[in-house]
Amino acid sequence: MNDFIEDKGEEASESYMNKVEVLLESLPYIKEYYDRIVVVKIGGSMVEDDSIIQSALNDLILMKYVGIKVVLIHGGGKQINELAKIKGIKPQFIDGLRVTDKDSIEIVKMVLIGNINTKIVSLLNTHGNLAIGISGNDGSFIKCHKKEYEKDGKSVDLGFVGEIEKINAGFINNILDKSYIPVIATLGVDDKGNIYNINADTCAAKIAISLNAKKMILLTDVDGIMESTKSGDKLISKLTVNQCLNMIKSGKIKSGMIPKVMACIDSLKSGAERTHILNGTKKHSILVEIFTDKGIGTMITGTEVK
Amino acid sequence: MNDFIEDKGEEASESYMNKVEVLLESLPYIKEYYDRIVVVKIGGSMVEDDSIIQSALNDLILMKYVGIKVVLIHGGGKQINELAKIKGIKPQFIDGLRVTDKDSIEIVKMVLIGNINTKIVSLLNTHGNLAIGISGNDGSFIKCHKKEYEKDGKSVDLGFVGEIEKINAGFINNILDKSYIPVIATLGVDDKGNIYNINADTCAAKIAISLNAKKMILLTDVDGIMESTKSGDKLISKLTVNQCLNMIKSGKIKSGMIPKVMACIDSLKSGAERTHILNGTKKHSILVEIFTDKGIGTMITGTEVK
Amino acid sequence: MNDFIEDKGEEASESYMNKVEVLLESLPYIKEYYDRIVVVKIGGSMVEDDSIIQSALNDLILMKYVGIKVVLIHGGGKQINELAKIKGIKPQFIDGLRVTDKDSIEIVKMVLIGNINTKIVSLLNTHGNLAIGISGNDGSFIKCHKKEYEKDGKSVDLGFVGEIEKINAGFINNILDKSYIPVIATLGVDDKGNIYNINADTCAAKIAISLNAKKMILLTDVDGIMESTKSGDKLISKLTVNQCLNMIKSGKIKSGMIPKVMACIDSLKSGAERTHILNGTKKHSILVEIFTDKGIGTMITGTEVK
Amino acid sequence: MNDFIEDKGEEASESYMNKVEVLLESLPYIKEYYDRIVVVKIGGSMVEDDSIIQSALNDLILMKYVGIKVVLIHGGGKQINELAKIKGIKPQFIDGLRVTDKDSIEIVKMVLIGNINTKIVSLLNTHGNLAIGISGNDGSFIKCHKKEYEKDGKSVDLGFVGEIEKINAGFINNILDKSYIPVIATLGVDDKGNIYNINADTCAAKIAISLNAKKMILLTDVDGIMESTKSGDKLISKLTVNQCLNMIKSGKIKSGMIPKVMACIDSLKSGAERTHILNGTKKHSILVEIFTDKGIGTMITGTEVK
Amino acid sequence: MNDFIEDKGEEASESYMNKVEVLLESLPYIKEYYDRIVVVKIGGSMVEDDSIIQSALNDLILMKYVGIKVVLIHGGGKQINELAKIKGIKPQFIDGLRVTDKDSIEIVKMVLIGNINTKIVSLLNTHGNLAIGISGNDGSFIKCHKKEYEKDGKSVDLGFVGEIEKINAGFINNILDKSYIPVIATLGVDDKGNIYNINADTCAAKIAISLNAKKMILLTDVDGIMESTKSGDKLISKLTVNQCLNMIKSGKIKSGMIPKVMACIDSLKSGAERTHILNGTKKHSILVEIFTDKGIGTMITGTEVK
Amino acid sequence: MNDFIEDKGEEASESYMNKVEVLLESLPYIKEYYDRIVVVKIGGSMVEDDSIIQSALNDLILMKYVGIKVVLIHGGGKQINELAKIKGIKPQFIDGLRVTDKDSIEIVKMVLIGNINTKIVSLLNTHGNLAIGISGNDGSFIKCHKKEYEKDGKSVDLGFVGEIEKINAGFINNILDKSYIPVIATLGVDDKGNIYNINADTCAAKIAISLNAKKMILLTDVDGIMESTKSGDKLISKLTVNQCLNMIKSGKIKSGMIPKVMACIDSLKSGAERTHILNGTKKHSILVEIFTDKGIGTMITGTEVK
Repeated sequence: MNDFIEDKGEEASESYMNKVEVLLESLPYIKEYYDRIVVVKIGGSMVEDDSIIQSALNDLILMKYVGIKVVLIHGGGKQINELAKIKGIKPQFIDGLRVTDKDSIEIVKMVLIGNINTKIVSLLNTHGNLAIGISGNDGSFIKCHKKEYEKDGKSVDLGFVGEIEKINAGFINNILDKSYIPVIATLGVDDKGNIYNINADTCAAKIAISLNAKKMILLTDVDGIMESTKSGDKLISKLTVNQCLNMIKSGKIKSGMIPKVMACIDSLKSGAERTHILNGTKKHSILVEIFTDKGIGTMITGTEVK
Repeated sequence: MNDFIEDKGEEASESYMNKVEVLLESLPYIKEYYDRIVVVKIGGSMVEDDSIIQSALNDLILMKYVGIKVVLIHGGGKQINELAKIKGIKPQFIDGLRVTDKDSIEIVKMVLIGNINTKIVSLLNTHGNLAIGISGNDGSFIKCHKKEYEKDGKSVDLGFVGEIEKINAGFINNILDKSYIPVIATLGVDDKGNIYNINADTCAAKIAISLNAKKMILLTDVDGIMESTKSGDKLISKLTVNQCLNMIKSGKIKSGMIPKVMACIDSLKSGAERTHILNGTKKHSILVEIFTDKGIGTMITGTEVK
Repeated sequence: MNDFIEDKGEEASESYMNKVEVLLESLPYIKEYYDRIVVVKIGGSMVEDDSIIQSALNDLILMKYVGIKVVLIHGGGKQINELAKIKGIKPQFIDGLRVTDKDSIEIVKMVLIGNINTKIVSLLNTHGNLAIGISGNDGSFIKCHKKEYEKDGKSVDLGFVGEIEKINAGFINNILDKSYIPVIATLGVDDKGNIYNINADTCAAKIAISLNAKKMILLTDVDGIMESTKSGDKLISKLTVNQCLNMIKSGKIKSGMIPKVMACIDSLKSGAERTHILNGTKKHSILVEIFTDKGIGTMITGTEVK
Repeated sequence: MNDFIEDKGEEASESYMNKVEVLLESLPYIKEYYDRIVVVKIGGSMVEDDSIIQSALNDLILMKYVGIKVVLIHGGGKQINELAKIKGIKPQFIDGLRVTDKDSIEIVKMVLIGNINTKIVSLLNTHGNLAIGISGNDGSFIKCHKKEYEKDGKSVDLGFVGEIEKINAGFINNILDKSYIPVIATLGVDDKGNIYNINADTCAAKIAISLNAKKMILLTDVDGIMESTKSGDKLISKLTVNQCLNMIKSGKIKSGMIPKVMACIDSLKSGAERTHILNGTKKHSILVEIFTDKGIGTMITGTEVK
Repeated sequence: MNDFIEDKGEEASESYMNKVEVLLESLPYIKEYYDRIVVVKIGGSMVEDDSIIQSALNDLILMKYVGIKVVLIHGGGKQINELAKIKGIKPQFIDGLRVTDKDSIEIVKMVLIGNINTKIVSLLNTHGNLAIGISGNDGSFIKCHKKEYEKDGKSVDLGFVGEIEKINAGFINNILDKSYIPVIATLGVDDKGNIYNINADTCAAKIAISLNAKKMILLTDVDGIMESTKSGDKLISKLTVNQCLNMIKSGKIKSGMIPKVMACIDSLKSGAERTHILNGTKKHSILVEIFTDKGIGTMITGTEVK
Repeated sequence: MNDFIEDKGEEASESYMNKVEVLLESLPYIKEYYDRIVVVKIGGSMVEDDSIIQSALNDLILMKYVGIKVVLIHGGGKQINELAKIKGIKPQFIDGLRVTDKDSIEIVKMVLIGNINTKIVSLLNTHGNLAIGISGNDGSFIKCHKKEYEKDGKSVDLGFVGEIEKINAGFINNILDKSYIPVIATLGVDDKGNIYNINADTCAAKIAISLNAKKMILLTDVDGIMESTKSGDKLISKLTVNQCLNMIKSGKIKSGMIPKVMACIDSLKSGAERTHILNGTKKHSILVEIFTDKGIGTMITGTEVK
């Protein structure tokens, strides 16, 4: 009967004990987020690197299993460019803004919905039947209209670039209530059935607002908002809305970071408690943010916090 | 007060009366299908022609509004070929069967989900927020495995071509219960997250069976099953399962028509009452089939009917 | 196998196509009324003529099957008179108003509930188990009190003629929610269990108001509100509330038409969008009104419409 | 402050105590019937006498308030005859069975539904909004067909006399679940909308069976089943099914009592625990039966009980 | 067949009839309380005498079965003292208020929950599975904090004596909705998990208020509020809030009666219709109060009633 | 702006990363137990030591927050003895079995429900309103009868020691469905309201069976089942049912361990997958068992597992 006597050394036990204690340390964070909505936006570039996206989705699965209602939003810039190139579409820009003509929006749809969204959903579903892919076209849940743009006082046609009018939060909540993770491609639709591309950061903010989310996290490929110091660039870990607005005005926050920061400010103004810009290409950055007291990336809050 | 006195002639009245009488003639058909599920499969070629697809979808909208639970399934052959060509993928065939390699399945996903499914959903939604696009990847609701194929007694690799294992009917019923039309791209998924292309006719049959549908209609671009007679080809309007099997054996039904006929036979064996192969490129063929006593196309039934 | 080859001529096809196109023309109207409540009042005289009532009920069945929540209200004047005569009750009138004594109200109950309501319900139910007959006595859902009437400054006893105090809309909605058509005999009840006759037009208006109905239609045996012109009487197809009030004041609308018009005005003031006085004895007048753009009868609206 | 000092004598107190003790004695009976269905059939003759019917309904109200689900079924023989006479309809009989021709069924409907049912409902509703009047015509909840009758080996036409095919128990349960007392006029309907008169005792039994009622009570105007003894007729308080069948065979139970006894036997065979034939014209007979250990009337049981 | 002929004499019948008439006399009271909440507080001393408590609980069972939602609250003074004595805890008093130290609250818990509550629940459950015992500790449904007390301008520590902050009425309603009688031990809990003893009369009032109870009855061991007159002490049967306040001011109401009277006043101010102080040791006092017009004990009302 | 620039060293980051990776390692275990029921029995001795019980309950809270439905069952031997001693009750034993007379069961109730159960509930509730304390007396959810015991062929009276007849699983499931942790004192009740003490291990098994629990864990104060070897006692980490039965027969498992082992065998036979006997006084033993692959304590399974 000796064969089923186990004699694990003390060291082994200690290591197990350490593991369990780490779990217990996470309990206050688990409680804090229990049954609350967290909106996570991942950039298109993250999806391309299999090891990065699988790791990030694994993190989200953990979040779901400890009771967080995760809403996943994704963009898809880079892949769109590639397909456009193959199909021989020459990118047209006005003031640095891409003009999305009829052919381009077709490519956007194919890449965002057919390729990226599908990939994310299938990866999540390897953990169980957990995810449903949707775009604003489904049930017309993101209603938008053509974005108006002016250059030199004249209206300029950006093509199928949309501005969100209304989010049907009930549509997303139905999916959450059935315990699925909604994976959202950021397309909207108007009353005539035209489909528009929407900035994914802005879309994440509007969705976070409509769902009364506890937290919005924008995963990108930089560490957060940086400040140049004598000893090189340094990450700023906390900013208030006012500090952000000043940094935009003074040009310290610029280009692609501006819509991210504005998305954060938007959702903070409408009730989100905290928003974060994190480097999604660094392993487990989102878990470190949620389940430890280490504030990585840049947190933007309504008012200064300690 | 004279201005609001109307004096429409008798002729006008007569025309209105005729209209109303046509409506009333449709009542028995409306009753018959009320609250029952009808699975409609439309071929990819129909989607390309805007006037055809809009007309067909308009027909489905009418069906929905008079109380039929419509489930729409679509393929997408032709468009897939075009994109493959652009991306420089050379079609490979074994016994006339397309080999769907890794690049090809990416194209299938982009076209089926990103392009065709999205287009159908947005067209339906111009009539209200009526439709939701899904593929078997969403919630993994179509589970499948790699289709095994043998040639000369040896197993041959067809790539990402799937064979359905299980349909989660509850997933579709949830959508129907919320009064949406599910628009289904025929992709399935295995436990490892691999996505497979599935024959759309076969998929329609499996879905019709799982939903206990009253009727399955396959819309294609021919009038139905034809028979060559001295005076030329003639449409056969009714066939029993046995007659179909004989015609396949004798080679009178061949190639692309075989999976359609087999799909019909499959769903008949599992309880569907009638199945139909109609020409979807002819205007309103589906409405004529449902709402009049004119049997257009070919109806296949379990046993002979008068 | 020749026996199941069909060869319908082109003409036949054309006729079927026409039918289907008429169906599609009705789609906008079906959409407009989908899931909305329409209150229809039919006069007692319509019920006597089997061909008229069967045709009218057939129309309502169609309305129900295309998604309209139909509430049917009926009166029953003529049949009441006949039975009273048989039972030897001499009609008594004060200012032209019938005095409803104890014997008379018994006859009203027997005719309205036992005869007319039962007949309508059984005719509707031949189309499925669709209708439930109720009167305000059931669950006391129409609470009323004795109508007070003055003549020459003195109170006059009209007997069991009631004035509605309160409608329990939940009672009717329960029936609608279970997909039945409520068929309502216009009797009310007071706290002591006395049953009163109520003017059916007035009752229809109060019910339309309590249910927040989209439309109220009063079916009668004249074409609508008429205006005498040199070339004879002409139907007025549209009137505003103000125009109606003026015509009552000037005596152009009189006697039995007054309560109908007042019922329309009442329900318009409380939110109904449009009200109609139609000739129910003309075939399909209600369907022409609902499903075509032909405005038959007289439409009364809150403000002028084009 | 003296004015609000009460000084009730001991005697008064004693009387109150007695009352309360009677209430407590009824507790075991209340428990036994709590939330169970009791089907009560009252004869038409009872309804005519205001003091009898009001007292009987008062008893039922008490039953309802102590948690019994009461289903009330009524006939209406006598009043039907009276109205028939007035309308000049000559009663026709075959083998003592009334032939219900087209005119007669109209009278049955008017009296049963318009007069008797309405009266019972309004009397019950004076105790709150407790009752809803229905007949088998409503929602076609009692489906029946023409009763076939043979005389001398030849089929004889009894007119609109129905035989029950199917009771939709769900229809009645919906009413009970909303805490109403269903008051049922015993008419049935066939698929063509013809309305038939049904024997009320038989109907009560079928309804008791379909509802899985705990008890069925037939209230009539005799004390129960009598036996002639030397010292005159005596009430038999308990009978088994077999004893009943013997007494019918031997002619001791005859004419109008036979359908009552057969109704009891029917519902006993289908699961009712006990059935009773009571004299409804005697005050509170039903309460004495339910709430005391005094077995008045005749109880019929499946097997002998002590 | 003679053996089943019964011949009960007339006298017997008369007695049964009397019983039934008593039942009917209670109908108006049953109606009045149907589906309404009555909060009953019984003193700890009542629980000690088996015959008293069993009789009182029997009364509550009757109340439950005739449709009253009974909420039972109990104290437990005497038994607590006894156990304290056994465990050698010396009672400490400040201004006549017992100081509840750590050992004492343990005894309170053991007696109130382990002994008294358990006993009441098991006695009720002999009538069916009717009762669930809870204390404010369960689901923390009574939140409280340490009661602050001042003596000579200085704060004095009374130990674990609690003051109610918040009652979770939903917690009790869940129990009532599942048709159970909640039996409540009057302990509360603070956020740190400390358990406090709460005055049972005060607790009953707070619970009555939170549940919007129709009536609160405090059962004690005296007949109510007494007034001394020349001819000895007399019970005052009715008092208004103002009269009570005056009597407290003038010292006519004193000591243990004060919290009872204040509890009544509290719940009257928050919407209870009537409150009663009854002698629970007198048999059926609660039933006499509820089901007869005899006002025993003292009724306290917001304003004078006749 | 320098003040909000953070510069945490790399080491810090590494430690956070380690934590997060431990969390991720637990994901497979979390998935496995998600939404499944785990029944945990803690011994009375554990409750006495504040640091042990708080640590154990903390573990359970974590389990609850990661989606496990925890059912907590407790005994209370030691404390019962102490109070008995104080109250002067002399323990009586028959064959080493304690006789639970009337006084003793009172003490059991006071300690188990009033003291231990209340303490556990209040400690759990400091983490939110998470727990509800119940005993089998509440809603009579554990029905039992007096345990029969024979000595020398003669029946011996053990007093109020109960044997479970029936567990009302719905009662516990209601509590779980409302997201509470049921904390169960192991008392049962018979139809006459007598309360019995039940062996807590046996009770845990019966409850695990009735709830179809995934796992039952018995926490005790020894490490599990031991085997004496030359080098001293060693823990046996895995046993099959058969091995256990042999060890009982051969006397290697004895006294207090026997009911524990039998409880495990019982619940294994009725569908539990695995059962465990763990040392609850060792920190986090339950978490190590659930969330790591280290099998501490003794696992008993139906058949041998690797």
